[in-house]
Amino acid sequence: MNKWNKRSRPERLERRVEFSSYEMTRDFLDRLGELCEHKKRFPDISFGKNYVNLTLRPLSDDKDAQITEADHSFASDVDNLSN
Amino acid sequence: MNKWNKRSRPERLERRVEFSSYEMTRDFLDRLGELCEHKKRFPDISFGKNYVNLTLRPLSDDKDAQITEADHSFASDVDNLSN
Repeated sequence: MNKWNKRSRPERLERRVEFSSYEMTRDFLDRLGELCEHKKRFPDISFGKNYVNLTLRPLSDDKDAQITEADHSFASDVDNLSN
Repeated sequence: MNKWNKRSRPERLERRVEFSSYEMTRDFLDRLGELCEHKKRFPDISFGKNYVNLTLRPLSDDKDAQITEADHSFASDVDNLSN
């Protein structure tokens, strides 16, 4: 099951993760922050008390840039954080 | 100088804070998270490598709810984090 939605114009991957408490949300954000720093990938992240939304764009700034295997690989790394 | 912009329909306060590194962004987010937990206020937060955007809504779910002194007070607490 793919937890990410692929959007176009510009191409990007999006995922929403929900949590039952702010403590769990922050715990996920902490681990996500470490992953981003380690991989040098910085998705756009928005969150509130009980949710985190991620938007992962291709590394290239080209507006026609496509999602690549490397992007899917990073997305899987994120999935593994909440397993 | 007021760092927050007041928006309407629905009424809310918004602020953008920029940082020169991801380390500084995360440091701010950590302190912000502690403040939110302490004050039991959970603004919508979005961030990337070098920025954090905050949207602070009135506590009431009423769509006509107004920003109050308590909201301005929380906004000041956030300002003090980045001083």
